[in-house]
Amino acid sequence: MPRTTSHHERREHIAEAAWRVIEREGIAKLNLREIAREGGYTTGVLSHYFRDKQELLAYALGLVVDRQAERVLRVAQVDLRAALAELLPLDAERRRECVIWLALTTASLQQPDLAAELQRRCAQARTAISSALGNALAASSDEDIDDLADELQALIDGITVNALGQPERYPPERQLAVLARALARLGMPQPT
Amino acid sequence: MPRTTSHHERREHIAEAAWRVIEREGIAKLNLREIAREGGYTTGVLSHYFRDKQELLAYALGLVVDRQAERVLRVAQVDLRAALAELLPLDAERRRECVIWLALTTASLQQPDLAAELQRRCAQARTAISSALGNALAASSDEDIDDLADELQALIDGITVNALGQPERYPPERQLAVLARALARLGMPQPT
Repeated sequence: MPRTTSHHERREHIAEAAWRVIEREGIAKLNLREIAREGGYTTGVLSHYFRDKQELLAYALGLVVDRQAERVLRVAQVDLRAALAELLPLDAERRRECVIWLALTTASLQQPDLAAELQRRCAQARTAISSALGNALAASSDEDIDDLADELQALIDGITVNALGQPERYPPERQLAVLARALARLGMPQPT
Repeated sequence: MPRTTSHHERREHIAEAAWRVIEREGIAKLNLREIAREGGYTTGVLSHYFRDKQELLAYALGLVVDRQAERVLRVAQVDLRAALAELLPLDAERRRECVIWLALTTASLQQPDLAAELQRRCAQARTAISSALGNALAASSDEDIDDLADELQALIDGITVNALGQPERYPPERQLAVLARALARLGMPQPT
């Protein structure tokens, strides 16, 4: 079904244009016209693929979460620490994902509709990640998986915010060092 | 020197008006006119106390950090866990502080001048908090205080972001439970 594929690909392409605009300028002045210009579309074309800005933003964040989840789950089979590192702003691509996540999370605090849409869109991927990681950790722990997942989530999100806000203080090796120490405390077997 | 006191108090009053506007509407459309209206001033009066919006925002965040630091350091003498809880969005006042912090941190990612101002304004208070807490923990640990402070900072900021974004999932008791478990792992003596 080429038409469906093309529709799907077009939505991804538009979302990626939105990512670049958000990373460059934040979402304070974000509008559909600018996203269209960034992607090389007219606003008319955009409105064919997304009902409104809110739907586009929710989709753009969902796409970030899906891609993160895909990488995490792929790597988690082999190396849990490396899998979690996929969520940290360690390079340009992951930094962009983290900026999108932070910008939309922040914006959602005053926009109940956006908040609901974001939570719905993210819940499935987040649950998959947490549960894979919680299971891996629980093998060496008798603690509640949900509790471990809460701590892991806080840890990852906290390192992310600190690294985005204070990049000089948190170069990649420092982010990874904080993660490694905390994972050791959580009972994860050390790498050989 | 009553004039100095009054000038200082007026700046605080204006900053608190900015807090309310930011909590209610975010900083996407924030402007001096709205802050003035919220505080009951003219924009002319505002410009007497702050050079521009950036200076006001940096001051408003600095005031949040100062107040948090003051509470933390007061409580840290008695109970380290309670001191850290002062930083979490456990009630309306602390939630407002956390929303301001998150909004300005996010905005600073695309505004190098604001980022520099924020870091300068916050560095002293953050260092004071981290060092008080690091010292308290280090009494029962042989780890590097700076490393422990990194982990504590990530933990607190991560719980904060999760609790702001998913308030149903993170009521106060769950935030405190995550904090308590993580502090136990960091080697903090359990309360009796």
